[in-house]
Amino acid sequence: MTDDFEILVAGGGVAGLTAGLFAARNGRRTGLLLGDDIGGGHLIGVGRIEDFPGFPAGVPGYDLCPMIQEQAQDAGVEFVTSALKGLAPADGGWTATTGDGEVRAGAVIVATGSALRELGVPGEEKLRGHGVSTCATCDGPLHRGKAVAVVGGGDSALLEALELTDHVERVVLLHRGERLAGQHTYASRVLEHPAIEVRGSTAVEEIVGDTAVAGVKVRHTGTGETAEEQVTGVFVYVGLRPRTDVLRGLLPLDDDGRVPTDGAMRTALRGIFAAGDIRSDSAAQAVAAAGDGATAALAAHRHLADPGRPWPVLSAP
Amino acid sequence: MTDDFEILVAGGGVAGLTAGLFAARNGRRTGLLLGDDIGGGHLIGVGRIEDFPGFPAGVPGYDLCPMIQEQAQDAGVEFVTSALKGLAPADGGWTATTGDGEVRAGAVIVATGSALRELGVPGEEKLRGHGVSTCATCDGPLHRGKAVAVVGGGDSALLEALELTDHVERVVLLHRGERLAGQHTYASRVLEHPAIEVRGSTAVEEIVGDTAVAGVKVRHTGTGETAEEQVTGVFVYVGLRPRTDVLRGLLPLDDDGRVPTDGAMRTALRGIFAAGDIRSDSAAQAVAAAGDGATAALAAHRHLADPGRPWPVLSAP
Repeated sequence: MTDDFEILVAGGGVAGLTAGLFAARNGRRTGLLLGDDIGGGHLIGVGRIEDFPGFPAGVPGYDLCPMIQEQAQDAGVEFVTSALKGLAPADGGWTATTGDGEVRAGAVIVATGSALRELGVPGEEKLRGHGVSTCATCDGPLHRGKAVAVVGGGDSALLEALELTDHVERVVLLHRGERLAGQHTYASRVLEHPAIEVRGSTAVEEIVGDTAVAGVKVRHTGTGETAEEQVTGVFVYVGLRPRTDVLRGLLPLDDDGRVPTDGAMRTALRGIFAAGDIRSDSAAQAVAAAGDGATAALAAHRHLADPGRPWPVLSAP
Repeated sequence: MTDDFEILVAGGGVAGLTAGLFAARNGRRTGLLLGDDIGGGHLIGVGRIEDFPGFPAGVPGYDLCPMIQEQAQDAGVEFVTSALKGLAPADGGWTATTGDGEVRAGAVIVATGSALRELGVPGEEKLRGHGVSTCATCDGPLHRGKAVAVVGGGDSALLEALELTDHVERVVLLHRGERLAGQHTYASRVLEHPAIEVRGSTAVEEIVGDTAVAGVKVRHTGTGETAEEQVTGVFVYVGLRPRTDVLRGLLPLDDDGRVPTDGAMRTALRGIFAAGDIRSDSAAQAVAAAGDGATAALAAHRHLADPGRPWPVLSAP
């Protein structure tokens, strides 16, 4: 049986697209599973990535991802609009189960990225799309002149709070920590912004509203005091969950559900590589994901040229 | 004694500049040793980097590097025009010896990059700057209407051969392998180019000429046959040598002189990180160097927040 591809990449975000680009440029017949979402990973929703090298004025995620996809396409990557459902060894290579049947490949680079975590409080599910959102660029304009809440203290929360100030009257940033966890550059800009009020040590207990968000119930984690805040929108960025469900049972995962790799992005299984947010030690930054993708592609290219080379022993830490 | 910097980066190429950018954006007092060269690493000479994500039309190295330097500067990186000469442990951190005295830092990211290897044949040293060159963009125009030789079969040789066709009449590409070693994308373009003649299994034995290059003496490695080729320029790209001399004796190095790291770019020494071309498993690509820099910076940032965290045991493979 012939392999469908020499290298199969799972994931249409920055890591996967860059892996595909380098695999194809090295002459490998390369397939890329874009996943169930329409490409671009979770960065597609980011209004301005400031820290991608080569873009001193910043670049929107919805520009960057399609540009890399164009580069990958020009290099000869074959795109498949289907998601990775499973992986099984087959004749020295791998068979991937996808939403559209089986695909065989000599090496597989898993770059399935992250999903935003849910807050997990009453009202969140019911009011999603009715004021509960994870996209400031998309839904910020719906709250012009109003007050909204952002939940979280990491990079995404800070970036999106800043983005929202272009549209809304006031942003209340609610986070559980004593200090903001995100990049100092973003944190200081948020703290100095006149339209953003930052409240630390604060847990969101409920999102209230009948057919649309009317407010959030919060509790101070130190004093236990509760309050209700009147807002028309709640933007939730309480961390990223690596999309590694499909790898559970196949590969060892660390405590955060990420895949241990060595510096060549090799996992515990010969011929399987991991790149981007899903790997242990990922910096969870766009350019680090891109770099991982290139590193994984070159390592997969070398693996196919000499499949008998020593492979590292990796286990969950 | 107070540290001069929380994070010190050694190297002004893509890896170092990106490491500095992320260290500073995370609020760390960051110093960057630009080295003895005027910044930009060896990519500064590349006419068009085609595979950097976000630049579908390509980007010249002499544009990309200054853009990242601008981003790093905006983020607050302090640049020092001096090179790393040595490293010694000091009070839980490190003291770096530089051309301008000692600098103390809590963590050090070494990203000193690569130097082009020399061919090591008679005439090379004498005729450097008189026809022997490593920069097609700079020196190609001097050979308008003439024939030149490119020595090497990797990415740099192929890229520079293509670049030279904009200027010269004919390029003879001389390489030792049976097949071209560089990216398939470049290799097929070189092989199809009417102005480039590719000669494999070919060793350069001497560069001839009195005050300027007049030709190269070559030998076929299979048949042993020798010949002289009339050219006015010789462009040498026979591989990269990692600039790790300063680390020899301090850190274990692999057979290629590179530094083993884990996936977080941590070396065998607590508080010392390596990023880009100098690390084992480096993909030796611009975006991989950038990704390494970001990963190392985040790992150094976390190390400083919790210096007692477990540190991996690494040795030369």
